[in-house]
Amino acid sequence: MNIPTNISEKIKELEGKPWQPIDIVTVNNQVIRLALFQGEYHWHKHQDEEEMFYVIKGEIIIKIKDNDDINLKEGEMVVIQKGVEHKPMSEIKSYVLLFEPEKLKSKGD
Amino acid sequence: MNIPTNISEKIKELEGKPWQPIDIVTVNNQVIRLALFQGEYHWHKHQDEEEMFYVIKGEIIIKIKDNDDINLKEGEMVVIQKGVEHKPMSEIKSYVLLFEPEKLKSKGD
Repeated sequence: MNIPTNISEKIKELEGKPWQPIDIVTVNNQVIRLALFQGEYHWHKHQDEEEMFYVIKGEIIIKIKDNDDINLKEGEMVVIQKGVEHKPMSEIKSYVLLFEPEKLKSKGD
Repeated sequence: MNIPTNISEKIKELEGKPWQPIDIVTVNNQVIRLALFQGEYHWHKHQDEEEMFYVIKGEIIIKIKDNDDINLKEGEMVVIQKGVEHKPMSEIKSYVLLFEPEKLKSKGD
């Protein structure tokens, strides 16, 4: 408790582990995760929860079914609404903070 | 919807407005706020909610009643547990993301 978490330190833990988020902190039944985005993830959606992406390093694309791609640069965040099918991808190594309910499985449905 | 929010742009809106958080995005009934920390805030606590601080620029101190100060540097985050009396302060201009329930008043009790 009361021990700060350093994101740069956490980034090191993700080396070679794309699309494998690690839990950073839990706050009010929400979990903040950190993930390395590299290459392509699969299409999925979250039926009951919104998901927030915040790019702290790099640049990602979130493809949205039947809608424009979202280009998310360093220092930018976006919320994906519930039920929206999406596919994250990144050509370069990008590090992204995810804000999700504790019960959410990143893999989606 | 689906429009990215650029944190650097939001920082500009806070010029000359310390301790006046602005709402950035809402996700699952939680709100992510951005605030300029400069000088001292008052002692307060949140009875029913946890509060997350993430320093994106600068360096802050969170004084904790009857406990050690928390020194939070750029890229570091910490969760303050419910009911814990705390007092944020910063000698320099620091920009902090706050993650709180929508209903929370930053001013506390």
